[in-house]
Amino acid sequence: MADAERKLADGKARIDFNTDPSRYRHWKLKVEGEVATLLMDVDENAPLFEGYQLKLNSYDLGVDIELADALERLRFEQPQVKVILLRSGKPRVFCAGANIRMLAGASHAHKVNFCKFTNETRNAIEDASENSGQRMICVVAGSCAGGGYELALAADHIILTDDGSSTVALPELPLLAVLPGTGGLTRVTDKRKVRRDHADVFCTTEEGVKGKRAVEWRLVDEAVPNTRLDQVVAARAREFAAQSDRPSGAKGIALTPLDVRASADSRSYKYVSVEFARPERLVTITLRGPGAPPPADAEAMVAQGAGFWPLALARELDDAILDIRLNEFDTAVIVFKSEGDPAAVLAYDAFLDRHKDHWLAREIILKWKRVLKRVDLTSRSLVALIEPGSCFTGTLAELIFAADRSYMLVGRHDGDNRPPAAIALSQANFGPYPTANGITRLQSRFLADGGAVERARASIGTMLDAEAAQALGLVTFAPDDIDWEDEIRLFLEERASFSPDALTGMEANLRFGGPETMESKIFARLTAWQNWIFQRPNAVGEEGALRRYGTGQKPVFDRKRV
Amino acid sequence: MADAERKLADGKARIDFNTDPSRYRHWKLKVEGEVATLLMDVDENAPLFEGYQLKLNSYDLGVDIELADALERLRFEQPQVKVILLRSGKPRVFCAGANIRMLAGASHAHKVNFCKFTNETRNAIEDASENSGQRMICVVAGSCAGGGYELALAADHIILTDDGSSTVALPELPLLAVLPGTGGLTRVTDKRKVRRDHADVFCTTEEGVKGKRAVEWRLVDEAVPNTRLDQVVAARAREFAAQSDRPSGAKGIALTPLDVRASADSRSYKYVSVEFARPERLVTITLRGPGAPPPADAEAMVAQGAGFWPLALARELDDAILDIRLNEFDTAVIVFKSEGDPAAVLAYDAFLDRHKDHWLAREIILKWKRVLKRVDLTSRSLVALIEPGSCFTGTLAELIFAADRSYMLVGRHDGDNRPPAAIALSQANFGPYPTANGITRLQSRFLADGGAVERARASIGTMLDAEAAQALGLVTFAPDDIDWEDEIRLFLEERASFSPDALTGMEANLRFGGPETMESKIFARLTAWQNWIFQRPNAVGEEGALRRYGTGQKPVFDRKRV
Repeated sequence: MADAERKLADGKARIDFNTDPSRYRHWKLKVEGEVATLLMDVDENAPLFEGYQLKLNSYDLGVDIELADALERLRFEQPQVKVILLRSGKPRVFCAGANIRMLAGASHAHKVNFCKFTNETRNAIEDASENSGQRMICVVAGSCAGGGYELALAADHIILTDDGSSTVALPELPLLAVLPGTGGLTRVTDKRKVRRDHADVFCTTEEGVKGKRAVEWRLVDEAVPNTRLDQVVAARAREFAAQSDRPSGAKGIALTPLDVRASADSRSYKYVSVEFARPERLVTITLRGPGAPPPADAEAMVAQGAGFWPLALARELDDAILDIRLNEFDTAVIVFKSEGDPAAVLAYDAFLDRHKDHWLAREIILKWKRVLKRVDLTSRSLVALIEPGSCFTGTLAELIFAADRSYMLVGRHDGDNRPPAAIALSQANFGPYPTANGITRLQSRFLADGGAVERARASIGTMLDAEAAQALGLVTFAPDDIDWEDEIRLFLEERASFSPDALTGMEANLRFGGPETMESKIFARLTAWQNWIFQRPNAVGEEGALRRYGTGQKPVFDRKRV
Repeated sequence: MADAERKLADGKARIDFNTDPSRYRHWKLKVEGEVATLLMDVDENAPLFEGYQLKLNSYDLGVDIELADALERLRFEQPQVKVILLRSGKPRVFCAGANIRMLAGASHAHKVNFCKFTNETRNAIEDASENSGQRMICVVAGSCAGGGYELALAADHIILTDDGSSTVALPELPLLAVLPGTGGLTRVTDKRKVRRDHADVFCTTEEGVKGKRAVEWRLVDEAVPNTRLDQVVAARAREFAAQSDRPSGAKGIALTPLDVRASADSRSYKYVSVEFARPERLVTITLRGPGAPPPADAEAMVAQGAGFWPLALARELDDAILDIRLNEFDTAVIVFKSEGDPAAVLAYDAFLDRHKDHWLAREIILKWKRVLKRVDLTSRSLVALIEPGSCFTGTLAELIFAADRSYMLVGRHDGDNRPPAAIALSQANFGPYPTANGITRLQSRFLADGGAVERARASIGTMLDAEAAQALGLVTFAPDDIDWEDEIRLFLEERASFSPDALTGMEANLRFGGPETMESKIFARLTAWQNWIFQRPNAVGEEGALRRYGTGQKPVFDRKRV
């Protein structure tokens, strides 16, 4: 299921996104006080799929799953870590980028979703720097090419060894006829603000750029001779650490393994259930509200650790989404449902808001932000069904606004004597969870009418029934029990009948109205072009550059400029 | 050459972008005082290519070439026109959008460049409204679907006949498995600010939306019963005209036919020469400076009309670029050269700046803005070669900054006793010609360093030799005569050897660093996704929706979501 065309090297049927440092094959994580070192040392004999080796610190999704895990742990388990040093554990090579044989053999769907995940991991690095006080310094010795340099670009500061041979390079175009698509082109122009003609030269120069020119062209921040390297790295670590607001004395919480029970048609976590209706190309994700009121204070939250409901739910939802994205390509629609006490969810929002200056509450809010962005970027049609017994309030209401559309039942289902469904907003809907394009989901929903956002804000805390929710513009349709089943069924059947590609393109446009940011440009301008190129024979055809790389045969190109 | 797979219906080898109202087959242009009516009345028997009919006011590139021509003429020939009414000349149909059989039979390169041109035409409608006081009211009676509604979306105001049957629709996704890619999705969210869940319903509803719901969902501005239609249209025309700053009494200039002589390997205009070196996949465009100083005053400019050098040059360059885009797909690189007196070009910039409040000077400046944007969006590698005898100053220097890179000779070529090349900036480089993303080309070049823009501004009017230009960051490389030929040759050979697709994707990213606007989003987010879909078997394969449309057979989709 993971990729119909290939077998996972571990013999399993699904890609597993859960790991921990004891199982890492590719990274070494060392923490010394406020500085952590993340050492990339890829085991070439531990690829995710059969059929290739991960030479020269090249990576596949398996390598990136470990990196993403390490970054999460640094946030939650090491609150005192203020600086991350990203280095290579191999001599003469920092990182050769995404593994080319893996790419050449991967299905289009895997390739695109692999790139999406690696993009999200790099965005998470920047989020940690911007919002969580955890800055990254990348120390490049040896060759740093393609995805390797794109990883470096996610850091705050790039130090290049000035040894006459260490280089940074984006050789994708000359070598492989694809783009530096993991944010590379966008970060070169928009983050590092390299002059566009220099960027043109750089991105067409297979051998890369070293030393002084790399600094002059803003590709790295400094080029430092080997003799001074340790000293400069230590100095920069101290400087960045001094700017951090992370708590020096705090003790982290353990990100304990997710407890997930999987059957052929379901995945069941503590607060999330996933049901696959494969003949209908449908997945239903049900989120459950908290079983108890919020703890008394921040210390009690820390004591609950990974069991604290908002954190547990966020981690489970994240895992469920990733599992669908990369293991269930045939899914057309994800249905979001919820079960629980609407007021209890709001109580947790209020708790997090009250403690938002506490490091752990801040991390949990930021985690939800990232998970919700992951939902926005998931190329499946998303719908929220709001029925009696549900708890789509506050943070969970963001799923209504992330969805392509929503249906809220007016009144009750025949024979169900629970009270009608209600939704309610909290402060969480008005700031902490911006989308990739930098605005809240409600701002994005009401681009035409700032007044609608204010009317929604005025309703904070009020339980809204279907009519009230519709009057405020918060849900798409509000059918009653007579129409509900038919209307939902028709929608789901219709969605499953449409071209999956056209839906992906449409949703990638309609979900991101309004402004763009560097992050949203990566997923829009850059990724969309890369996906196009990933379809073109010049890259992926029998005679294309990606297929022919390493064979000694030159690629043959269709010379038409499109 | 126009499209290797098809024959032009007129029997010619190249698509011709020049036309005039006497030759229109598809549009009727009627001017009454300050209101013009542009009537779409497509001749189904006059398609651009053989093999299809243009039924139901559907369009192909030929229809759009006439529309673009009519819009240009309304600006230059009818300065008193303040409002354009866009209507259909056919009963029961406004416009059925891009012709599906044309799309199904077109090469990928033609399809992409057709969409680019139609996008530019719609952007020009919005530019006329925003900057030239010429507002457009679209009056929809009958069915207005797909590209038809996308055309309506370019207007300032959409009036839908409320007759129980007139509808607006974007049926591309359900019907054809492609996107409303001519700005449709972006304008729905970013211009009309339709709520995204409503947009989702609208874009998946084949039959469209009519009357009251169309107004409520912001898809149109008003729905008016037939009995009141004429009255409402007249009232709106008066209201919009009252807001216009176009000169009521002015007399227009005639956009006389371009004088172009074409041979197998060249196109020669009065101020522009185009040379094709097809074995090298190279086109050289040489722009010639003015033959005389600027006229004494605005009246003299009007008297010169289409012969006025800046206008003549802009029209010729525009035609040359379009000819290459759609007739010379194998071209890898466009080389820009210039010949003339650098000071004379600056004198014209000063003249236009002095008279920028005169309607004609304003139109000419806006025309240059559009032509330069067309250059930015041309998917060929662009290079400016700056040598002795050239006149890349002011407005013409924008081509240096539009290029992917530039080379400026230090000193002279051996045996050439002309003075070394010089460039110079004018006010024109600091405002009037923003790119699609809303900033000047110099701001885009110096994203890292606003100071560099200010240093460049301080040099206005100063003739800069190669070293000075390079010190200011205005050119990429400044080789001397010893290196010049080899360096240029290597660059051109290298560029021609790369994958054309990867270059297109790379340039579409590196040329547009920094902010995005609605316009740039159309070309980035929307177009890139549409281009991807235009490659996918679900749309264009043998069993795809675009191929199977109208055959009675249902399309067969690969169900994988990517």
